[in-house]
Amino acid sequence: MPQYSKRCLFAGTGAQRLVEAVAKHLSRINRKPQSVSPALVGKWANAETRVQLQTNVRGADVFIFQSFADQVNDRIMELMLLVDAALRASADRITVVAPYLPYSKQEKKVRGREPIAAKVLANMLRAAGANRVISVDLHERAIQGFYDIPFDHLTALGVLAEHLAKLGYNRNDSVVVAPDEGAMEKSMALAQMLGVDVAVVLKRHPEEDPESVETAAFIGNVKGRRAVIWDDMILGGSTLVNAAEEVLKGGAKEVVACITHAILCGTAVQQIEASKLSKLIVSDTTAPERAYASEKITVASIAGLLAEAIDHIHRNLSVSELLPDEV
Amino acid sequence: MPQYSKRCLFAGTGAQRLVEAVAKHLSRINRKPQSVSPALVGKWANAETRVQLQTNVRGADVFIFQSFADQVNDRIMELMLLVDAALRASADRITVVAPYLPYSKQEKKVRGREPIAAKVLANMLRAAGANRVISVDLHERAIQGFYDIPFDHLTALGVLAEHLAKLGYNRNDSVVVAPDEGAMEKSMALAQMLGVDVAVVLKRHPEEDPESVETAAFIGNVKGRRAVIWDDMILGGSTLVNAAEEVLKGGAKEVVACITHAILCGTAVQQIEASKLSKLIVSDTTAPERAYASEKITVASIAGLLAEAIDHIHRNLSVSELLPDEV
Amino acid sequence: MPQYSKRCLFAGTGAQRLVEAVAKHLSRINRKPQSVSPALVGKWANAETRVQLQTNVRGADVFIFQSFADQVNDRIMELMLLVDAALRASADRITVVAPYLPYSKQEKKVRGREPIAAKVLANMLRAAGANRVISVDLHERAIQGFYDIPFDHLTALGVLAEHLAKLGYNRNDSVVVAPDEGAMEKSMALAQMLGVDVAVVLKRHPEEDPESVETAAFIGNVKGRRAVIWDDMILGGSTLVNAAEEVLKGGAKEVVACITHAILCGTAVQQIEASKLSKLIVSDTTAPERAYASEKITVASIAGLLAEAIDHIHRNLSVSELLPDEV
Amino acid sequence: MPQYSKRCLFAGTGAQRLVEAVAKHLSRINRKPQSVSPALVGKWANAETRVQLQTNVRGADVFIFQSFADQVNDRIMELMLLVDAALRASADRITVVAPYLPYSKQEKKVRGREPIAAKVLANMLRAAGANRVISVDLHERAIQGFYDIPFDHLTALGVLAEHLAKLGYNRNDSVVVAPDEGAMEKSMALAQMLGVDVAVVLKRHPEEDPESVETAAFIGNVKGRRAVIWDDMILGGSTLVNAAEEVLKGGAKEVVACITHAILCGTAVQQIEASKLSKLIVSDTTAPERAYASEKITVASIAGLLAEAIDHIHRNLSVSELLPDEV
Amino acid sequence: MPQYSKRCLFAGTGAQRLVEAVAKHLSRINRKPQSVSPALVGKWANAETRVQLQTNVRGADVFIFQSFADQVNDRIMELMLLVDAALRASADRITVVAPYLPYSKQEKKVRGREPIAAKVLANMLRAAGANRVISVDLHERAIQGFYDIPFDHLTALGVLAEHLAKLGYNRNDSVVVAPDEGAMEKSMALAQMLGVDVAVVLKRHPEEDPESVETAAFIGNVKGRRAVIWDDMILGGSTLVNAAEEVLKGGAKEVVACITHAILCGTAVQQIEASKLSKLIVSDTTAPERAYASEKITVASIAGLLAEAIDHIHRNLSVSELLPDEV
Amino acid sequence: MPQYSKRCLFAGTGAQRLVEAVAKHLSRINRKPQSVSPALVGKWANAETRVQLQTNVRGADVFIFQSFADQVNDRIMELMLLVDAALRASADRITVVAPYLPYSKQEKKVRGREPIAAKVLANMLRAAGANRVISVDLHERAIQGFYDIPFDHLTALGVLAEHLAKLGYNRNDSVVVAPDEGAMEKSMALAQMLGVDVAVVLKRHPEEDPESVETAAFIGNVKGRRAVIWDDMILGGSTLVNAAEEVLKGGAKEVVACITHAILCGTAVQQIEASKLSKLIVSDTTAPERAYASEKITVASIAGLLAEAIDHIHRNLSVSELLPDEV
Repeated sequence: MPQYSKRCLFAGTGAQRLVEAVAKHLSRINRKPQSVSPALVGKWANAETRVQLQTNVRGADVFIFQSFADQVNDRIMELMLLVDAALRASADRITVVAPYLPYSKQEKKVRGREPIAAKVLANMLRAAGANRVISVDLHERAIQGFYDIPFDHLTALGVLAEHLAKLGYNRNDSVVVAPDEGAMEKSMALAQMLGVDVAVVLKRHPEEDPESVETAAFIGNVKGRRAVIWDDMILGGSTLVNAAEEVLKGGAKEVVACITHAILCGTAVQQIEASKLSKLIVSDTTAPERAYASEKITVASIAGLLAEAIDHIHRNLSVSELLPDEV
Repeated sequence: MPQYSKRCLFAGTGAQRLVEAVAKHLSRINRKPQSVSPALVGKWANAETRVQLQTNVRGADVFIFQSFADQVNDRIMELMLLVDAALRASADRITVVAPYLPYSKQEKKVRGREPIAAKVLANMLRAAGANRVISVDLHERAIQGFYDIPFDHLTALGVLAEHLAKLGYNRNDSVVVAPDEGAMEKSMALAQMLGVDVAVVLKRHPEEDPESVETAAFIGNVKGRRAVIWDDMILGGSTLVNAAEEVLKGGAKEVVACITHAILCGTAVQQIEASKLSKLIVSDTTAPERAYASEKITVASIAGLLAEAIDHIHRNLSVSELLPDEV
Repeated sequence: MPQYSKRCLFAGTGAQRLVEAVAKHLSRINRKPQSVSPALVGKWANAETRVQLQTNVRGADVFIFQSFADQVNDRIMELMLLVDAALRASADRITVVAPYLPYSKQEKKVRGREPIAAKVLANMLRAAGANRVISVDLHERAIQGFYDIPFDHLTALGVLAEHLAKLGYNRNDSVVVAPDEGAMEKSMALAQMLGVDVAVVLKRHPEEDPESVETAAFIGNVKGRRAVIWDDMILGGSTLVNAAEEVLKGGAKEVVACITHAILCGTAVQQIEASKLSKLIVSDTTAPERAYASEKITVASIAGLLAEAIDHIHRNLSVSELLPDEV
Repeated sequence: MPQYSKRCLFAGTGAQRLVEAVAKHLSRINRKPQSVSPALVGKWANAETRVQLQTNVRGADVFIFQSFADQVNDRIMELMLLVDAALRASADRITVVAPYLPYSKQEKKVRGREPIAAKVLANMLRAAGANRVISVDLHERAIQGFYDIPFDHLTALGVLAEHLAKLGYNRNDSVVVAPDEGAMEKSMALAQMLGVDVAVVLKRHPEEDPESVETAAFIGNVKGRRAVIWDDMILGGSTLVNAAEEVLKGGAKEVVACITHAILCGTAVQQIEASKLSKLIVSDTTAPERAYASEKITVASIAGLLAEAIDHIHRNLSVSELLPDEV
Repeated sequence: MPQYSKRCLFAGTGAQRLVEAVAKHLSRINRKPQSVSPALVGKWANAETRVQLQTNVRGADVFIFQSFADQVNDRIMELMLLVDAALRASADRITVVAPYLPYSKQEKKVRGREPIAAKVLANMLRAAGANRVISVDLHERAIQGFYDIPFDHLTALGVLAEHLAKLGYNRNDSVVVAPDEGAMEKSMALAQMLGVDVAVVLKRHPEEDPESVETAAFIGNVKGRRAVIWDDMILGGSTLVNAAEEVLKGGAKEVVACITHAILCGTAVQQIEASKLSKLIVSDTTAPERAYASEKITVASIAGLLAEAIDHIHRNLSVSELLPDEV
Repeated sequence: MPQYSKRCLFAGTGAQRLVEAVAKHLSRINRKPQSVSPALVGKWANAETRVQLQTNVRGADVFIFQSFADQVNDRIMELMLLVDAALRASADRITVVAPYLPYSKQEKKVRGREPIAAKVLANMLRAAGANRVISVDLHERAIQGFYDIPFDHLTALGVLAEHLAKLGYNRNDSVVVAPDEGAMEKSMALAQMLGVDVAVVLKRHPEEDPESVETAAFIGNVKGRRAVIWDDMILGGSTLVNAAEEVLKGGAKEVVACITHAILCGTAVQQIEASKLSKLIVSDTTAPERAYASEKITVASIAGLLAEAIDHIHRNLSVSELLPDEV
């Protein structure tokens, strides 16, 4: 159990707010100040990414944060160059902290002659020299197998459930609703945490226009209940808005949503605000700047969870015990 | 487009019947005889696998077949040694034909400190020197991303649908039933091929005993209809038997099943025979010896499909065009 | 010498115009039509790059073009996904055609804790599965050593010299001027092609602000001559404008510039237009949209040269013979 | 010299008895209890191997034991999955303890188109992520070169010699006999440890039936002596029984045998019991369950030697000093 | 079976004579002229090796010869740079022709903290990009397993036997003698080719001075016979001279020697000439310049065998059929 | 920050004097004795390199020194085998200390079909298992990118400047002269350290005879000044002697030279002694035995600098702070 006395946190441009929050939690947990290490991360005039670490990392246990709500490829290149700089500067161990892993919906070939972009990203990070990955609520769990390095897979469900419980959604009159069959497994886990029932909207996702949705059916009892829709990510918002309408048609007396990864691209925030959803609770895995600006959206932070995980990893304690059972 | 004038087919002990059938189809397609290449595949007295190719493979386009209905690890080692022997004997291209890819239900970590066995197998085949893989109806499509070599992913749905159509299951009074949410996508595709409706049994799969099942709910209209349950694989049979009972309870007037990969372990055949299923149709991806012995089970062969795919690969024609749309 | 009967050209969003021009030259050279293969290259709503090849590439000799004048990281990811898609679709050989290779000024560590971004890019392309690279006038020739695959290094000097000769810069009263010592070697080669003298501006490049320049000295006889400044790339334009002023101060009666890679970022075009340069000739390695719009800038196309190189590569002829001596 | 405070021992199904013995020796050596770490190692209903580590291994120095007397391929897959699980669970260093390394007689191509199975195994373990191997009395020492990781090669000769000395085989009237030329080098080393002479049986090993033997000649003086035949492994037993008969024909007054690796396949135990051998001494490198059951066979344990080696490895002490000179 | 129309032969400084001979044989076999491709192979003033191929190798099937009788490390570096140059110049397939593979006696660790130099060489050639190796009479067959690429292992025994037969050593009064147990297997094969008996000298090779020898015993009938000693290599000559004396002491009426690899270092030639050996026959695997100069030494060329092998490899014919049975 | 309590220094035959000097400095810096670890490094009779480490290196932080003034390929092979031996003997971290990295002038393809020898060397060291490299004043900084492991790039300028300052070359009447444009950047850095001006000789380096030189021009004011020529390496000496003559022709009142890497091949020392140079100061990066013998040549040792770097690396302190600014 080699002990690393030095622990460095760096962040790409997308994750400045998040890394600061995690550092504060680590200072509290360890009862000694944990700073964010300074680094230059920007662009040259020719649009190439430019990076320089500004502190000695020899022999250090280095954690590099990045978020990917937008400008995905620029963020990826920042991450690649930060990892390369840390490797060449003799960091002892380099952990990529990507709470939301981009390209994770491109984890298979749906049609011929497509790439498997999630694997391309995995191969890139391996080539750059990353030693470990921390991520949250993967779109598809088999993505862990794209990496041959340790991969700590956390879940934001606990943080979200705590928030929902404070709002009273752990009472009998609540029900968790999965907006499609892919979301069922985690919706059931969330329902179990809250001690409530579960339901599901079965949608048909036409191949020819993968961003549209067509609701196919609906199952479970929502009548007269307060419904909580859970999904792993929200992109443009229409899937969620449609699901909310289905649920209300089904007789729910209120519907809120609760999402791990808030991409919120295009007019998502406006759609949410115009919708019949009472509230949207998201985590900050994507550093969702657009979410903070909306009154209808609440951001529940996973910074405490990440800090606990980083501390356990750094001190070689089990990370499994930070996870809820059976997720 | 380098042309390989020589094409060799080899097979592990599990796939002798299958490779012979494929060779016959290739002879027909190309109008010239395609033989199966002789190879010694067996065991030494000390239980180690023993392999020797018995024909010159220099510069050849080599296809190595293996099936995995039982003795999985022995079959894997045969495959590894066949690939190594072909590589060292200067084969130009080595394609692994594994219509059923074992360990594909271990494609993710469900709990902490588990391996990802499907990735271990992928890494093994890469280390041995395989250049390409052909497989059928993967349990999880992201497994393709475990391989960084071309991977031709075929489906047995067409072969099964054709068989069902002959039995009249393409009439209005039929319905395809998915025994769980994981089987929905392909069940819908099968229903579309047959031009009939689809339904689903929603089961709860308790983590602590992953081979038991607990049916949770049921959706879609089966009343008075002839139901066809589709699933990607049948292991011990209880999931399928339970699903059949659910469907009959739901009012179906008859229920048959149709499965791509027939593992049929333990008392599966007896259970099927004692069940209320009228018939079970399986493909021969697993070289299912036990299936041929049962009167209730029909084996629909994918040998013709594999032969078409191998011929297209060998002649650099598109394989996508052999696939039904949208699968 | 395996002969590929099928040759496919694909392009990322940056290189559409270039690939069309190359296809035309190939049609002419081979006296049969060479089309550009269709591919979907764009973005999903969540800012992730999206790619699909739209023609069969099995066994084909695939050339994938990309240019990088701007949006460098997006272009790189397009290239990565195009290579991955071609690999998984069983292309036989994948050649990356990147006439201007980005990140090539980040080919060394200037200070501690920097990445070597040009090597990161090389490792990425190797990880994706590229088999070969074609590029033009590398900023530093040792970058070829970052790749362990064949790397055809062409030069635009011939194309530029031909253009200059037409304008009469091959007469005695002309002189080629290198704007710094790094440009001397190729400036001497250009001068030799034109049969004229060479001179050099020696600049001091302060580390703390790597994009500014400070001219230090000047050598060679330009008095009364028509000067041609050559450099490998133009970014913001100030280096070139300053060099032009030095040359005029030195007594040149006219000064034009001639540059391989036209990045032309920021206000470069305006600066050029406001400067004392009579004319700027650039090649189209970067697909320089901004250059076409300026009356003072002429674009000399390398499409013919690339077409010759691709044809020689495809037919296993020597590419060295396409290069001028001693460059 | 990074110090690992945590040391974990795991075992596959073949090595339970051995790992327990080693743990006891380690408890004694270090004067603090060393337990065997719990792990689930078994099979799913579909014959796939199933593994889960049941204790935290983050940052630990992990030793994974496996023996291979039978069911070789199943044992190998257990080992592969245990290594993968340890790697993904963030073990710091993974040492494979395989006292008998299977497939080591397939370390070369004897005929064309054979695999080199011992190298296939080495490549598999590297692909899985093993960092180090411990093994005993390799069939061919060049196998160490199949691994590019540290490989501690121990010998059971010391343990066997000690046992023989207790039985009086270190007196003048004893002689060590090698049953073939391949066993000469180690037989001479054993003779030197015992301070006695050496002799050799020269056999002709017909290629067409590699498991039969045909004794060709005999050299050295055994007349009137008590002979000790040493060999690295015993498979079916006939080689050994024949050698014993040769030795007795040569005039020896008694013959015992002493073998490192006891595979004892087929009717080996019965053959030994029916033979003219007075006694067979084997080590427990293979966890030889069949040996414990025979009165004629004595098992001399290498557990103490393995414990010493593991302790030296763990504490960065020299392992060479545990080896006899010149072996 | 891709057909390479172009076949190029290059050679390092050690193998010029050999490659010329092979080219002549190929011209004869194929009935069209096969030239040796020109290459610059030498040294810069600073003792660094300098290499340049002087003909186009795009798409070619390239064979690079090297011999290693002396200046081993310089020859290795020439070979490495020739391979690298061929790879970067787009050769399609690069075969290393090293009839004598150096460092092959360092194929295992004899003592702690030694390297395994034969594996280091294998890893170097793999890193340089060699696709295939041809070698002759490996010191230890397991070395083939150090390579994960096709390895054609030829034997000079046929060439040597043919020569011996012409000299009448295929008559009853001849016997083949192995100078140590390591040489027995191939000595028996040679005896079988000649149709004569076999004998063996058993030597003790003291570890502390590995180049001295101490003869320990002698077996087989040589009395009154003409003895032929075979060994795989001759270094300084003392082993062979001593063996010859043993054989004559044993009553042989004449002794000749026959060796595959003639290193002949130090005073070997003088020792041979002063010895009681009537004649020494060696092959030209090492390009043994010193051998040609001695009247007592005859060089039997393997050029014809290599030419056959290269032609079979180039045309994808079986190489096994060029080998004698059971070797 | 894992702490290595054990630090071992080994050296190839070229670097014995240097490693002893470094050990003395380390003893002084750490106030405890640092010995050089014993190792056998030599040749077998057959010209193969022979290596054995003679102390336990398990878990140690191992530094392996080598110099390359002559017999370059032999020194490289010693280094390869020392690294392999250390790896197999379980060293924890292996740092190659090559103050002068050979083959660094072959870092690019100048003509077609050349190797990139500096990359071949980098790939060899990676394949052998080196974890880190320390080198001094690389001929071309991009060579760092040939390595994907940490690379500490030191400069001898500080040591040389200190020596020059003692001789009074930091006074106004001095000027640093670069003998060609490639040496300008570091010459400017040296001038800055000394607080004096800089000048440059522009040479034309004809491709057809790369070791000759032809001075083309001269720039900067040397009239009446004491000139210090700096270059990164001296091979045969003629470049330097010619530059000295140019400088004296330019009116300098005296000229000395100061060179990092002293290869001094051929008649270099005699040329220097016969030249108009007053003095030549070189560092000991190449272990320049020939330099010590000349009265005109002074050797300034970098042993202290290497010792500081090794100590910082061993204790995870920043190495950047040992470097002068902006080099």
